Amino acid sequence: MKTLHVELGDRRYPIHIGPGLLERPDLLRPHIPGQQALVVSNATVAPLYLDRARAALAGLRHEAVILPDGERYKTLETLNDIFTALLSHRFDRDCTLIALGGGVIGDMAGFAAACYQRGVHFIQIPTTLLAQVDSSVGGKTAVNHPLGKNMIGAFHQPRCVLADTDTLATLPDRELGAGLAEVIKYGLIRDLPFLEWLESHIERLLARETAALSEAIERSCRNKAAIVAADERETGERALLNLGHTFGHAIETGVGYGEWLHGEAVAAGMCLAADLSARLGWLRWEQVERVRALLARAGLPLEPPPALTTDDFLRLMAVDKKVRDGRLRLILLRDLGRGVIAGAVDPQRLRETLEAARRE
Amino acid sequence: MKTLHVELGDRRYPIHIGPGLLERPDLLRPHIPGQQALVVSNATVAPLYLDRARAALAGLRHEAVILPDGERYKTLETLNDIFTALLSHRFDRDCTLIALGGGVIGDMAGFAAACYQRGVHFIQIPTTLLAQVDSSVGGKTAVNHPLGKNMIGAFHQPRCVLADTDTLATLPDRELGAGLAEVIKYGLIRDLPFLEWLESHIERLLARETAALSEAIERSCRNKAAIVAADERETGERALLNLGHTFGHAIETGVGYGEWLHGEAVAAGMCLAADLSARLGWLRWEQVERVRALLARAGLPLEPPPALTTDDFLRLMAVDKKVRDGRLRLILLRDLGRGVIAGAVDPQRLRETLEAARRE
Repeated sequence: MKTLHVELGDRRYPIHIGPGLLERPDLLRPHIPGQQALVVSNATVAPLYLDRARAALAGLRHEAVILPDGERYKTLETLNDIFTALLSHRFDRDCTLIALGGGVIGDMAGFAAACYQRGVHFIQIPTTLLAQVDSSVGGKTAVNHPLGKNMIGAFHQPRCVLADTDTLATLPDRELGAGLAEVIKYGLIRDLPFLEWLESHIERLLARETAALSEAIERSCRNKAAIVAADERETGERALLNLGHTFGHAIETGVGYGEWLHGEAVAAGMCLAADLSARLGWLRWEQVERVRALLARAGLPLEPPPALTTDDFLRLMAVDKKVRDGRLRLILLRDLGRGVIAGAVDPQRLRETLEAARRE
Repeated sequence: MKTLHVELGDRRYPIHIGPGLLERPDLLRPHIPGQQALVVSNATVAPLYLDRARAALAGLRHEAVILPDGERYKTLETLNDIFTALLSHRFDRDCTLIALGGGVIGDMAGFAAACYQRGVHFIQIPTTLLAQVDSSVGGKTAVNHPLGKNMIGAFHQPRCVLADTDTLATLPDRELGAGLAEVIKYGLIRDLPFLEWLESHIERLLARETAALSEAIERSCRNKAAIVAADERETGERALLNLGHTFGHAIETGVGYGEWLHGEAVAAGMCLAADLSARLGWLRWEQVERVRALLARAGLPLEPPPALTTDDFLRLMAVDKKVRDGRLRLILLRDLGRGVIAGAVDPQRLRETLEAARRE
C-alpha cells in the first residue's frame, strides 16, 4: 500500500492506494468520528462491493442508499434521495457519508455531506480509475443542471480517500480508458517525465497490470494533491486541472449527460486544446500529434461528436465556470508538461480549431 | 444610519441600519465586485421594493428572479429556479446575488450563492423585522426538507447587510410580532438590560416608532454579531441563538411549513424552554411568567398547537440539528439573560413540560 497526503493544515487527509483496502477497517475507522455512517453507492457498484464496505463498519450504526447509475442522475433530485435517507434514519450532525463508486457517486455524496445540516463528515472510496486519480481527491463536489455541468456544488474535503486497486478488475474497458484521459492530463499540464512514462506503459495499464496501475494512480494523486494544497479554491493554478474540460463540458452538455463518458469528452477536449495551442504558436504540430497518438492508444476519441456545430460549442462554452465577467479563460499548453491559463483567447483562432475538428 | 460590523477577519462585513437605505447605491456598490447582479425576491416584496433596489444597481448588468412567497416554498425545487435564472442569464463566478425579502428569501438566495459554481458573492437586504434582527446576519443559509426544517444548507456569509427600516412600514402586524420573538430572545439569552428595555418599549415597537425600531434592531444585531464572530460554525455558544428553536422547528414541521410563522413557533418554544428551565430549578416560576407576559404583549402565542401530541413533539425533536449522536441538546435558561446549552435533559422533565402545555 502507498500512502500520500493532501496538505491542507488541520484538514490534511491521507490517500491510501493499493489492493485489498476494502478489507482494512483500520484504515477507515479513525476517520469516522461519530457512531453513524451512510454508504452512498449505485446499482452497479453496490452488488460488487457494498457488503465488503459495510463489513468494515461493523460496530457502528451503518445504513446504505443506492442511487441509479449514471451521469444523467447527477441532479438535485437524486441528491434529495440522499437527504431523505439521512433524515429517515435520523442521522445527526456527527454522521459520516461514505462514497462507494465512481465520480458521480463521489460528487453527489460529497455535495450531500457539504449540505446536510450545513456540513457533515465524508470519506471517499473510489471504485473507478477516473475517481481514484481525479475526482475523489481535492474536495470539489457538485451536481449538474440541465443548462450546465457541475454548476451547483461546494468545496468539501473528505477525511480520507481509499483507492482499492482491486475494484478496477470489474471496471468496463471504456471506463478504464476514460480514467486514463485524466491520468494523461497530469503529464500534459505539469509532469513531462510522467507523460514519457505513460508513453512507455500505456499497454500495461490497458492490460490492468497491478504495479503499473498503482504507479499511475500514485503519480496522478501526487500531482493533484500538490495542486490542491497550493490552491484549494481554484483562484489560480488549480484551474490547470481543467485542461480539456471547458471543451469537454460543452460536449457532455451538448450531447446529453451520459452519452459520452466524462474522460472521453476530456480526451477530445485536450485534442482541441492542443490544436489551439499549436495555432497560437505554443506547441509544434508534431507535439500535437504526440498527444493524439497517446490518447488514441488508450482507445479515446480525438474529435468531438459531429452533431455539435461550432456555434453550439461557443454557446455552451460561454456558461462554463471558467468564464469570468464574460471573458472565456481556457487552459492551453505552452509546451508538453506545461499548462497555462489563457485569459483572453483570440476568438478567431478558437473558431479555426473548432472548424478544423469538424473536418477531420 | 447606524453601522456595525460582523468581525470575521478577511470576511468582516458591515450591517447598516436606518431609513432610506434602499436609495443609497453608495452603500451597496462597494460590495459588488463583478459586473453582474441577480436580485432574488418574492411576489409580495418585489412589487413594493424591487424597482428601488434595481435603481441602485444602474450601470451593472442586473436581473431579477421572483419566487413565490412563503416558508412552504423554501425547498430544493424553488432553489433550482434561482440556478435556472443564473444560468439562463449566463451569470459567471464573479456575479453577486442580492436577497430582497424576509428570512425565506435570505436563506434561499444565500444558499444558492453558496452553491452556484461552488460559491459566488451575496448581499442581504432584509425587509422583515425577523430578517433584519436575525436571519440576515451570520451566514446560515438553508432550505427545508419534508422531514425537517433547514436540514439542507451551508454557512455562507454576506458581504454586506442593508436593513432599511422604511420597509417595515408595509410589514403585516403578525410578521412584526414574529420578528419581536427573536428580538426578545437576545434579551433572554445574554442581555438582561435589553430585556428590561423591551419590557418598557414593547408598545412603541408595536406602534412602529422609528427610533424604537432602530434601537431594537441595532441592539439585536450587536448581540448576534458578537456571537457569530466568536463561533461562526456553531461549535459552541452560537447554539444559544437556538433558544426555543428545537421546540419551534417541531411545531413548524408538525403543523406544516407556513401555518405558523417561524417567530410564532419560536415564541411558543421559548415558553416551553422557560417552563422546563423552571422544572429543573433554574428559573423561578415568576420569571417564567415574566417571559410569558412580554411575549403576550407582543401578540405572540404562548402554547404549541393543540393538534401536536407530546409523542409528536418528541419524534420531531429527535431529528433536529441540535441532536448529537442520539442525545438531545436543548437551549435553556439558567436565569433571565443567561442561556445555557443543556446537553442531557432529563426526558421525564421534558415530558412534563410538554404535557403541562397541553393542559393550559
